[in-house]
Amino acid sequence: MTPPPDYERLGFKEILVRLEGAVAVAVLNRANKFNTFSTLLVEELVQVFDLFDKDDRVRVVILTAEPTAPVFCAGADITAGWDAMRGVDIASKGHQAHRDRGGRVTMAIYNCRKITIAAVNGHAAGVGMTGLQLPFDFRFVWEGAKLSFPFVRRGIAAEAVSSYLLPRLLSHSRATSLLLSGATVSPTSPLISSLYHQILPTREAVFPAAKAFADELAQNTSQVGVAYTKALLQHPGESLEENHLLDSRAFSVLVHEGDAKEGAMSFKERRPPQFRDTLSSTKTPWTPWWRPLDVSPKL
Amino acid sequence: MTPPPDYERLGFKEILVRLEGAVAVAVLNRANKFNTFSTLLVEELVQVFDLFDKDDRVRVVILTAEPTAPVFCAGADITAGWDAMRGVDIASKGHQAHRDRGGRVTMAIYNCRKITIAAVNGHAAGVGMTGLQLPFDFRFVWEGAKLSFPFVRRGIAAEAVSSYLLPRLLSHSRATSLLLSGATVSPTSPLISSLYHQILPTREAVFPAAKAFADELAQNTSQVGVAYTKALLQHPGESLEENHLLDSRAFSVLVHEGDAKEGAMSFKERRPPQFRDTLSSTKTPWTPWWRPLDVSPKL
Amino acid sequence: MTPPPDYERLGFKEILVRLEGAVAVAVLNRANKFNTFSTLLVEELVQVFDLFDKDDRVRVVILTAEPTAPVFCAGADITAGWDAMRGVDIASKGHQAHRDRGGRVTMAIYNCRKITIAAVNGHAAGVGMTGLQLPFDFRFVWEGAKLSFPFVRRGIAAEAVSSYLLPRLLSHSRATSLLLSGATVSPTSPLISSLYHQILPTREAVFPAAKAFADELAQNTSQVGVAYTKALLQHPGESLEENHLLDSRAFSVLVHEGDAKEGAMSFKERRPPQFRDTLSSTKTPWTPWWRPLDVSPKL
Repeated sequence: MTPPPDYERLGFKEILVRLEGAVAVAVLNRANKFNTFSTLLVEELVQVFDLFDKDDRVRVVILTAEPTAPVFCAGADITAGWDAMRGVDIASKGHQAHRDRGGRVTMAIYNCRKITIAAVNGHAAGVGMTGLQLPFDFRFVWEGAKLSFPFVRRGIAAEAVSSYLLPRLLSHSRATSLLLSGATVSPTSPLISSLYHQILPTREAVFPAAKAFADELAQNTSQVGVAYTKALLQHPGESLEENHLLDSRAFSVLVHEGDAKEGAMSFKERRPPQFRDTLSSTKTPWTPWWRPLDVSPKL
Repeated sequence: MTPPPDYERLGFKEILVRLEGAVAVAVLNRANKFNTFSTLLVEELVQVFDLFDKDDRVRVVILTAEPTAPVFCAGADITAGWDAMRGVDIASKGHQAHRDRGGRVTMAIYNCRKITIAAVNGHAAGVGMTGLQLPFDFRFVWEGAKLSFPFVRRGIAAEAVSSYLLPRLLSHSRATSLLLSGATVSPTSPLISSLYHQILPTREAVFPAAKAFADELAQNTSQVGVAYTKALLQHPGESLEENHLLDSRAFSVLVHEGDAKEGAMSFKERRPPQFRDTLSSTKTPWTPWWRPLDVSPKL
Repeated sequence: MTPPPDYERLGFKEILVRLEGAVAVAVLNRANKFNTFSTLLVEELVQVFDLFDKDDRVRVVILTAEPTAPVFCAGADITAGWDAMRGVDIASKGHQAHRDRGGRVTMAIYNCRKITIAAVNGHAAGVGMTGLQLPFDFRFVWEGAKLSFPFVRRGIAAEAVSSYLLPRLLSHSRATSLLLSGATVSPTSPLISSLYHQILPTREAVFPAAKAFADELAQNTSQVGVAYTKALLQHPGESLEENHLLDSRAFSVLVHEGDAKEGAMSFKERRPPQFRDTLSSTKTPWTPWWRPLDVSPKL
């Protein structure tokens, strides 16, 4: 078994990562570049969420920016055109070979089996609205943030899997309004407010609120119960009946593990639970029940 | 043809059932046990919703609790651990053989082809939030109710098909917030308010409001129109075009029945309709167009 | 290449159509019949939305009524029964051959690849709520409009593909409440408010607000970026990963077109964009990636 990673010594440059108890915190570290997406930032985010997923010590993850940064994330830097966002050589490989960078970050965050929280303490545009917010389980936001989805105003389409996630998160009426108008809205707008778990009055209040929420969840939730619930939400049955089969098995598997026993016992004894099961210690394999799709380019 | 059931003489113990005109009322009868789920309660709920489904006299169903009960439903009683919720012998049958009891109740309510209403006149937790609320068509609730989804705080995962129903009812943003935080919320919280058709100021006001609503619907809606609309909502086409085929056939089938004629005539004559078609009298078979899934355990 | 249509000379009778710059406006012209659905109105709406879809000059479409009309649309005229809504001879062709007229209008609007806006400046009932509102990208409405879904109160089921669209637009909780109760509600009701992009205080204010919104979008959005985003929203991947493949290709295709270059350049130069790409000029074919379903009757 490999030792758990020491996040502060892994050499990340464009994010700062620390572990506080069972809560991992990643901070965007490109304030002087408006926290825009760079090739390195994408690689570091993909890597660190993969590490969080596998690290049994981590129960909750928070992504945030410095509250003194000019923005949470200004999206892609397109002042020199789109070249920085291009990956493969289309002329020889074809459009099918391209893999959107925003989407790669989205997938890494969405597939992390821990509780994930975006603490949006500044303005956000483009992939700062999509890849850095939509795949999270919870979003905390500053009331004064300007939030924009400018894709159709830049000649491109909704990216970073936002056409899949936003309608599911908000329903199609709101998602269509936001993506087809290229709107800039405030978190309290009825078009977007239901995206957010909590809206805070100041930039400085966002991270502390998210951190207190994370700490409480880290102490009182089961890592395996969370991961199984996330898997059911992300991969439900195709019918009520099929979902009943899936969550029936979930109950049967989990109730034989230690966390369910501790959950019932602590509830009876009216004390906080001491959950000890981890994803790597859980004895019964239970995922995936869906068909995984390999999206690596066939070059 | 068998005579219609006399609900008050069927010997139900943990629910009280009565028929008032075309409105069936089922009342949870375990107030001294906080209306917790028992094996018998599960069996009686499954049985009675199956009877309501087939009884042509029934147009609307209400499930409620005594407003003087300490809670609407406290969920499963786990003070003695999870044994009461276990069904099959896992050691010999395997996890695949388990069938969640909350899910069995959810399916019986969801598959009842009549209008169904939950009148939530007290606090609700666990399966009291899931199986006893989510499969209904309408939910009325007391403003002061404490509503909680404690699964991840007890070491288990979201049950009773809630991972399927809650995101569809509320969108994924709110469903994920509720299920992954194990939150306790009030009905007026923006996290959950859209689950409810109406929020009432007192516990005593919930059932009368639901009953008046049910009486109006029982008098003025078509049993077959309701059942076909429910079937379309629960089993839509996989595309706009496929759904167009399904609801085109719905129109063609229904417009040849008596209720459509009476609907047009009463509208023209500006009088209340007298709908007489029933599910068993309707001549053209039209369901299922989906593939039914048999979830009975293969023991 | 055929010359673009002169909408004012195409001989439409039950709609008035004009092109104002890149914004096409269609006005219901049956005020003396409460803008009810007629066979001719259906045919004209299907035809004109098909023309808008193919006309490169059109970037945004608005459908509205005269603000002096008694209603926006009273639905189908059933005072003489349902005969006017019947199409084929069921006795010889069977129920499977019927094609709902509301659904035909819904499909024509939904499949128009331009931005579509319903300016609902009066009361709306039946197909005036479904076919004439749900397939649009944006809905503007008069605060005083009475909005009703009376299907189950007329002995029929939800039509015009509303059982598919309404739950996606509003989530199932609200859609079920509206369709199974046959409710009449106001736009500010929590049951329906999220259907609307904007709610205006007077009937007269609705069209000007929609027109100003349309003009701004026509000037500042890319026709191909809009069409690709609509296609992704209407036909998402079946999983996050599949959608990533679809929007990755979207980025790769679009970034090689002129609009993306102009989008980045105008952003850098802080000036409005001058988008020139059109659906017929775009070089790379990219739709459909879904399986089209032919719904024409097999007679």
